[in-house]
Amino acid sequence: MILKQAYQEVRRRSELICAPLKTEDYVVQPVVDVSPPKWHLGHTTWFFETFILMPNVKEYTEFDSQYNFVFNSYYESVGARVIRTDRGNLSRPSVEEVMRYRQYVDEAMIAFLDEEQPPHLHSLIVLGLNHEEQHQELLYTDIKYILGHNPLFPAYDASRKEINTVNNQRDSWLNIREGLYAIGFEGEGFCFDNELNRHKVYLGDYAIREQLVSNAEYLDFILAGGYQDFRFWHAEGWDWVKTNHITTPMYWYNIEGQWLHYSWQGLQPLMPDAPLAHVSYYEAAAFAAWKGYRLPTEAEWEIAAPQLNWGQRWEWTESAYLPYPGFAKAPGAIGEYNGKFMINQMVLRGASEVTSPNHSRITYRNFFHPYLRWQFTGIRLAR
Amino acid sequence: MILKQAYQEVRRRSELICAPLKTEDYVVQPVVDVSPPKWHLGHTTWFFETFILMPNVKEYTEFDSQYNFVFNSYYESVGARVIRTDRGNLSRPSVEEVMRYRQYVDEAMIAFLDEEQPPHLHSLIVLGLNHEEQHQELLYTDIKYILGHNPLFPAYDASRKEINTVNNQRDSWLNIREGLYAIGFEGEGFCFDNELNRHKVYLGDYAIREQLVSNAEYLDFILAGGYQDFRFWHAEGWDWVKTNHITTPMYWYNIEGQWLHYSWQGLQPLMPDAPLAHVSYYEAAAFAAWKGYRLPTEAEWEIAAPQLNWGQRWEWTESAYLPYPGFAKAPGAIGEYNGKFMINQMVLRGASEVTSPNHSRITYRNFFHPYLRWQFTGIRLAR
Amino acid sequence: MILKQAYQEVRRRSELICAPLKTEDYVVQPVVDVSPPKWHLGHTTWFFETFILMPNVKEYTEFDSQYNFVFNSYYESVGARVIRTDRGNLSRPSVEEVMRYRQYVDEAMIAFLDEEQPPHLHSLIVLGLNHEEQHQELLYTDIKYILGHNPLFPAYDASRKEINTVNNQRDSWLNIREGLYAIGFEGEGFCFDNELNRHKVYLGDYAIREQLVSNAEYLDFILAGGYQDFRFWHAEGWDWVKTNHITTPMYWYNIEGQWLHYSWQGLQPLMPDAPLAHVSYYEAAAFAAWKGYRLPTEAEWEIAAPQLNWGQRWEWTESAYLPYPGFAKAPGAIGEYNGKFMINQMVLRGASEVTSPNHSRITYRNFFHPYLRWQFTGIRLAR
Amino acid sequence: MILKQAYQEVRRRSELICAPLKTEDYVVQPVVDVSPPKWHLGHTTWFFETFILMPNVKEYTEFDSQYNFVFNSYYESVGARVIRTDRGNLSRPSVEEVMRYRQYVDEAMIAFLDEEQPPHLHSLIVLGLNHEEQHQELLYTDIKYILGHNPLFPAYDASRKEINTVNNQRDSWLNIREGLYAIGFEGEGFCFDNELNRHKVYLGDYAIREQLVSNAEYLDFILAGGYQDFRFWHAEGWDWVKTNHITTPMYWYNIEGQWLHYSWQGLQPLMPDAPLAHVSYYEAAAFAAWKGYRLPTEAEWEIAAPQLNWGQRWEWTESAYLPYPGFAKAPGAIGEYNGKFMINQMVLRGASEVTSPNHSRITYRNFFHPYLRWQFTGIRLAR
Repeated sequence: MILKQAYQEVRRRSELICAPLKTEDYVVQPVVDVSPPKWHLGHTTWFFETFILMPNVKEYTEFDSQYNFVFNSYYESVGARVIRTDRGNLSRPSVEEVMRYRQYVDEAMIAFLDEEQPPHLHSLIVLGLNHEEQHQELLYTDIKYILGHNPLFPAYDASRKEINTVNNQRDSWLNIREGLYAIGFEGEGFCFDNELNRHKVYLGDYAIREQLVSNAEYLDFILAGGYQDFRFWHAEGWDWVKTNHITTPMYWYNIEGQWLHYSWQGLQPLMPDAPLAHVSYYEAAAFAAWKGYRLPTEAEWEIAAPQLNWGQRWEWTESAYLPYPGFAKAPGAIGEYNGKFMINQMVLRGASEVTSPNHSRITYRNFFHPYLRWQFTGIRLAR
Repeated sequence: MILKQAYQEVRRRSELICAPLKTEDYVVQPVVDVSPPKWHLGHTTWFFETFILMPNVKEYTEFDSQYNFVFNSYYESVGARVIRTDRGNLSRPSVEEVMRYRQYVDEAMIAFLDEEQPPHLHSLIVLGLNHEEQHQELLYTDIKYILGHNPLFPAYDASRKEINTVNNQRDSWLNIREGLYAIGFEGEGFCFDNELNRHKVYLGDYAIREQLVSNAEYLDFILAGGYQDFRFWHAEGWDWVKTNHITTPMYWYNIEGQWLHYSWQGLQPLMPDAPLAHVSYYEAAAFAAWKGYRLPTEAEWEIAAPQLNWGQRWEWTESAYLPYPGFAKAPGAIGEYNGKFMINQMVLRGASEVTSPNHSRITYRNFFHPYLRWQFTGIRLAR
Repeated sequence: MILKQAYQEVRRRSELICAPLKTEDYVVQPVVDVSPPKWHLGHTTWFFETFILMPNVKEYTEFDSQYNFVFNSYYESVGARVIRTDRGNLSRPSVEEVMRYRQYVDEAMIAFLDEEQPPHLHSLIVLGLNHEEQHQELLYTDIKYILGHNPLFPAYDASRKEINTVNNQRDSWLNIREGLYAIGFEGEGFCFDNELNRHKVYLGDYAIREQLVSNAEYLDFILAGGYQDFRFWHAEGWDWVKTNHITTPMYWYNIEGQWLHYSWQGLQPLMPDAPLAHVSYYEAAAFAAWKGYRLPTEAEWEIAAPQLNWGQRWEWTESAYLPYPGFAKAPGAIGEYNGKFMINQMVLRGASEVTSPNHSRITYRNFFHPYLRWQFTGIRLAR
Repeated sequence: MILKQAYQEVRRRSELICAPLKTEDYVVQPVVDVSPPKWHLGHTTWFFETFILMPNVKEYTEFDSQYNFVFNSYYESVGARVIRTDRGNLSRPSVEEVMRYRQYVDEAMIAFLDEEQPPHLHSLIVLGLNHEEQHQELLYTDIKYILGHNPLFPAYDASRKEINTVNNQRDSWLNIREGLYAIGFEGEGFCFDNELNRHKVYLGDYAIREQLVSNAEYLDFILAGGYQDFRFWHAEGWDWVKTNHITTPMYWYNIEGQWLHYSWQGLQPLMPDAPLAHVSYYEAAAFAAWKGYRLPTEAEWEIAAPQLNWGQRWEWTESAYLPYPGFAKAPGAIGEYNGKFMINQMVLRGASEVTSPNHSRITYRNFFHPYLRWQFTGIRLAR
C-alpha cells in the first residue's frame, strides 16, 4: 500500500513539473543531451510497462507496440530504439497520446500494486520510481534549457525563484583529520548499484569549505581574465573554451554592462550571493586552480558531508566515475543502468534545488561528462 | 480590390494546408531543408510586415520586435536571423501566437489594400503572394517529410489520394526540329526575375517523351541493379548513394516482399502506373543513362511544353541554374530573392500536384541541389 | 616513331618538373585536392601499364601487383583504390621505387612503340600522354601548394619568375555581334570527349575585355571592402568566405603593411600589373559584380578567343560543366574520364603559365568546383 | 660528466631507432596521434634549445627562429605552434636539416655540459632526457603505425622479433592481503611530477594474475563473439566498436583463414603464446568482463608489482589519471608537462618492449585515452 502511494505521488509529480508548459515546449530537443519533455514522460512510463507489466501481468495488453522503439533510451537488451539525436524530430505520439499512455499504464500499475509483490518485484518498482525521480530532475533542467535558449526567453513560472543565498557569506573551512574511513551505502532502503560496496578508504588531512562558491566569487574569476589564461585549465578544457567561445557560466549574459541570468522567471539580474550554478567540470577545476585550491574527492566529500549544508547544487568532485570495490552489475537489462557509463565521466555529489524530494543521499553518486553544465552544477573548494 | 481578394485567398490557403496537423507537427525540423510549419506561417507573414507595412504604413506598430530575428529566412540585408538548422529548436512563439501574428498583419494589410497602391508596391505585394505560394508547396512537402519520417507513419489526410495515372502508359515521343527559338518570360502578369530576359536559343533536332517515367518503369531500374552499378552515376551521385545507403526513391519501403510508399494516407501499396516522385537529380540522370536516354535541357523543355501534359511532377532538367542573358538583380533586399542561388543547383521545370493554383507557368524556373528529393520531383526523358 | 618521341618527351618532362624537389616534398598531401608528387609520377605510369601494356603485351610482367591499389585514382572499373584523403599517408613506395617503376614501364612502352599500333591503341596512347600533361600542370600547382603552405616558405626555383604583365594595362573591349556560331572541337588531332560534338549556339551582342584582371585591380576590390559586403556574393560563396575567413586570393599576405605573395621564388612583393591568379569562382563572380560586369559564358569565350591574347590564366566562365549536345561516353574504364564529373563544377577556358606545351586548344574545357583556387585561375570580364 | 655521457647516449639512441627508415618514412602522419619521425627528432631537440640553451648560454644563436613554430608540441607558454593534425603536411625542414639541427644543438649542449650546472638546471636537463626517452617509445610505435598501415606492409627490420612468450603459460594468481599501503615515488633519482606525493592507500583483499593475457586467450574472446555482445562493453566502448568496425586488436588480420599480425618483420603468423598487444582500454575491460574478472587499480598494481614479472606491455588499469594528494604543478612551461592532461585518460602501468632502458619505474604513471591502442598495450587481470 505504501508502494502504491509512492507510485501515485511520483507519477503525479512528473506531470506537475510540466504543467506550466505549452504543447510546443514538450516537443523540441535543442541539443543532444536535452530530451523533449514528452519523451521523458513516455520513457518513464515505458519502464514500468516493459519491466513490470509485460513480464508479470498476464492479461496486460501493450498500449502500442511501436512505443518500445520510440521510448527506449539506451537499453541494448530491449531492442531497437530511436537514436538520441532524433528524439526532437518526432511530432508523434502527441502530448495527448503520451498522457493517455501514462494513464493506461498507471491504471494497470495501480491494480497490480493492490496485490502483494514478491521482494524482487518490489525492488524493481522502487527502482522504477527512483528512475522517474531522476527524470524529474532532467525535466526541470531540460525545460530550463529549452526556454532559456529561446530568443524570446519565456519564463517557466513567473513566481518561482531560484535559491538566493550562500549561507552567510563567510569563508569558513572544515578540517578533517587523516584516518581510515568508510564510504558507500549501507543499511535499509533504496540505493543504486554504483553506491555499493561500502568500503574503507584512507584519507590524509584535508579541509573543505563550508560555503559553496557564490556568483560574486565566480564573477571575480571572470573579471580577472580567468577564461583567457590557459594556465588554470586542463588542456581539453582550454580547447572547449576556445572552440565554443565560452566566457561565462551557462545562462549568464552581459547586456549593456549589466549581468543577467536566465532563471525560472525569465531574464533576471544576477544575484551575487546565490550559489553559482551551471558550470562545467573544466570551469570548476579552473576556478579552484585560480584560487589556489582544488576540488574535493568524492570520499572527502562523503566524509565531510554530515557537517556541511549541502543540497543546493550538484558539486563537482575530483573523482572519476569508476566502480567501487566489489561492484557488480545486476543481470539483464537492469544491469545496464550504471556500470556501462563508468568511463570518461566525473562524479558529482550532493543534490540540487530541482532534485526530487527524498531522492538525495550522502552516498549518492551522480556523474556527467566534464563539459556538461545544463544541470545545477556548482563548486565547493578543498585544500 | 482584386489584389485584396487575392491576398485573402492566398493567406487563407496556407492555414487550410495546416488544418489537419496537430500542434506538435508545427514545431519539428527533422532535417535542415525541412522547416517547421509554424515557421513557414510566420515567415510569410514577416515578409508582408517587413517589406510592406513597416516602410509604408506610418501608424503601424510591429507585432513583436523579436520576430525579425526568428522569422527572417536568409535576407542578409534585414539583420540577424536564426540559422536554418536551429528552427526546429524553437518551441516559442507558439502556434497560437503565430496565428495571432498572422491575424494582426492580415488586418493591417487588408486596411492597407483598401487604398490605391502605387505600381512598385503593387508589384511587391504580388511578389509577397507568390512568395507565400512557394511556401505553400514547401508546407506540403515539409509536412510529408515530418509525418513520413515518423516511425508511426501517421496519415496527413486519410481521404487524400496522390496522383495515380501516367497518361495512358504509352511510350510516345514528341519530335522537335532544329531551329532558333525564344525562351523566358514575356508579356503581362507576374514572373520572377530569373525568368528574364526572354532570349533566343538555338536547338538541334531532339525528341522528348510525352509521358513521365512511372513507378513501374523505375522499379525495373531498381530490380535490374541500377543502384549497384556505378557506370550509370555521376561520381558524386555514386558517393551519395554509397554514403547514404540509397536503394530506392524517398518514401519507398519493401516490407516482407511488398512495395509500399508513404503517402498522404499513410503507408500504402505502391501504385505502378503513377508518375514517379521523390527522386534526386542523381537518380534521374542515372535512370536516363540506364535507359540509353538523357534528361532534356530547360530550353528543350520550354519549347516542347505546350504540346506536353505537364504539371504533375517537377521535372529535373540537364540545365544548371544560371542567369539568363541580361539578368539583373532588383536593388535592396528583394534582390536577394533568386540571383544569389545561381550556383551548384539544377533547374526543374513544370509543377507538381502540390503547387498552388495559378502558380505554374511555362517559363517558371524551379531549382534545387542535385541530392534533394523531398519535393515531388520526377523524370521526363529526352534523346 | 613520332608517337615514340612524343612519349619520351612527355615522360621526361614530368620528371624535370620534380627535379628541384627534396625527397620529402614528394610525399605530403596537405589538403585533399593536392596529391603528393610521387603519386602523380606513379599514377601516370600506372595508366600506361594498366591500359596499354597489360592488355596488349603478352610477355609483360606487372611491376608490382599492389601498385594498382596505390596508384589508381578514381577508376571504379579497375578495382579497389587508396581513397584520396589517404594518399599523403603513404611513405612507400619510396620515390626511388616510383622512379624505377617509371623506368620499367618506359622501357616496355618504348619497345612496344617501336612496332606499328592499330588506330584504337594509338588513340589510347595519345590519351595517356594528354592525361600525363594534365598531371604535369597538377604537379606544378600541387608543388606550389606544398611549398607555399609550409611555414618556412621555401622557394621552388629561385630563378623562375611568374608572369608579370597584363598586356599594356588598357581597358579595351572586344565587341561581338549577335548571331549563330559553332563551338566544340572539329578536325584532326586530339581532343577530349567533353569537347564534342561541335554544335551551333546562338549568342546575342556582347563585349569581352581584352585584358585579364590585374593584381592591382583586384586589390582595389579588397580595399573597397569587397570581402565584407555580401551583396556581391553568391549565398554559398558568402558562406565560404565566412567559414574559411577568406580575405585575399590564395598566396597573398599582408605583412606589416606590405603586400606579398608566395611565388616560385618564395615570398615576393606583389606585382601590381601581373594578371591575378588563384581566385575561386566565387571571388571571380563577386569581383565582376562589384565592377558592374559579369563573367563570359564558355561559348562567348570560345567565339572571342581568336581575337584575344589568352593562355596566361585559366579563366572562370559563367557556364556550368555539362555535356554538349550529342556527348557520349567511351565504353569501359576510359569512359570514366570526363562525363561522370558533369555536375556542380564550372568551366574554365584558356590555359596557364604551367600548362604543358601543345596542351592548349581553343575548345579545351577545364572544370573545377567553384571553391577551388590552387590552380592559376584568373578573371576576364564580359558585359 | 655523467650527465654529459647520459646526454650523448640518449641522443644517439633516438637516431639509431630511425636508422632503418627511408627518408619518406620520416615525413608522414597517418592519424593525429602519430607524429612524423622527423618531428620527434626536431621536437626533442627544440626542448633543449628552448629550455636550456636559449635562457642559459649567452653566446648561443638560435638555429632557426622559425623552428619554435614548427617543433613546439603543446606548450602554450612558449608561443604559436603548428597544430597537431598538420605535422604531416610539412615536407620542410628536411630530414637532413633536422639532423643538422640536432648536431648544432648537441654541440652547444656538450660544451655546456662540460661546465658544472646548478641543481635546478641539472634537473631540467634530466627532465629533457626523460622527455626524449618518452619520444623514443613514440618513435617506435609511430614508425610501426606508419609502416603497418601501408598497403605494402614493409618490414621495419627483418631480423627484429617481437616478444614471444607469456611466462610459462600458467594461470597463477598472486594474493594480496588487505591493509594500508603507500604508493608514489620516494627517494633519490628522477621521477615525473605526477608520481608525487607518495601517500597511503587502503586496499582490501585482492588477487592479481601473474601472467599477462596471451594472444591465444584473446583469440578465444574473439571466437566466442566478444566483439558482437554489448553486455561486456562500456556504452562508449560499444559505440567505438560499431563506429570503427573493430573486430580484432590493431595489426591483426585474418587472411584466407589464417591469423596474421603486422610486426617489425612485416606480416607474420600470429604467435599464440605471445603477450597480447595493441588493445584499447575498452577491449581490455570487455575482455576482463567476459572472463568474469576485472582490471587492477593502479594502487593494486603498484603494491603487487615487486612480485610480478612486468615490463613487456603497458598494462591498462581501472584507474583514471588524476592528481595524487599534494600534487603540484611546476611553475612556468615545464608545469604544463603532466597536470593539464589529468582528465578523461586512464592510467597504464609497467613498461613495454620498446620502452627506453632505465626508463621504467614501479611508480611510473603512463596514461592514454581509452580508445588508443597504437602503443604496446596489454592486459593483466585482477579479481
